Amino acid sequence: MKQRVSIVTLGVEDIPKSRAFYKALGWKPVQHEHGDDIVFFQCGGMVVALYPRDLLAQDAGVSPDKKDQFSGITLAYNVNTKEEVHETIEQARKAGAKILKEPQDVFWGGYHSYFADPDGHLWEVAHNPFTLIDDQGRFIMEE
Amino acid sequence: MKQRVSIVTLGVEDIPKSRAFYKALGWKPVQHEHGDDIVFFQCGGMVVALYPRDLLAQDAGVSPDKKDQFSGITLAYNVNTKEEVHETIEQARKAGAKILKEPQDVFWGGYHSYFADPDGHLWEVAHNPFTLIDDQGRFIMEE
Repeated sequence: MKQRVSIVTLGVEDIPKSRAFYKALGWKPVQHEHGDDIVFFQCGGMVVALYPRDLLAQDAGVSPDKKDQFSGITLAYNVNTKEEVHETIEQARKAGAKILKEPQDVFWGGYHSYFADPDGHLWEVAHNPFTLIDDQGRFIMEE
Repeated sequence: MKQRVSIVTLGVEDIPKSRAFYKALGWKPVQHEHGDDIVFFQCGGMVVALYPRDLLAQDAGVSPDKKDQFSGITLAYNVNTKEEVHETIEQARKAGAKILKEPQDVFWGGYHSYFADPDGHLWEVAHNPFTLIDDQGRFIMEE
């Protein structure tokens, strides 16, 4: 597993309210047709996303109501192939990670898996066929 | 506030255990003389840090025991001057952020402040006189 974070996703209760907050801080969302489903902010070589808290927990396969299981934040490690999702998850398994979701297709067209680190911090390992990790390890949705 | 994240800090129960986990994933800590106090991993233009959960909550001015107040993760936005800490916090205040800690000196020699976004996600705004944000907005502890 390379040293990088592709996406930090903040689970939020109200997408329009959170988007307005970050815009008031001076941030500009990536132009995509996602409406109020999800919001992305390009932050250098990584992305900060806003996503409904309940759906984020569901995506990771944890309960949104158990605060000791779900911090409300996930980190994503993106890779360029499905094979790398498997390789990364096997490495995490060997390192002692708890695998919360085995590699599988996702509704938005990608392929992913989730593991938890020793303190329950959630990592998504994802292959998004619509974007690429460049040769410097950066995840760029919009320059 | 520029679009960037300088540090993602994961609150952990046991630094040696967490460090061993991330090393088993293939990550290599920044070479610093911090022993088991804190661990940094350079991840492209940002850093992932491991820090004791209780101390992280204390640093942010929240209770580590109240799971609805403290997710166990903080995001840091680093700036190059104390003045920028104040400017950023005033912008956050205007945007409706809850200021958890007004700008002040920190024991390690820096200057910082904390705010919470609408969902309680914690942002540290920090000036670290020993490192610089470069002109591309990157926070580099070790190339």
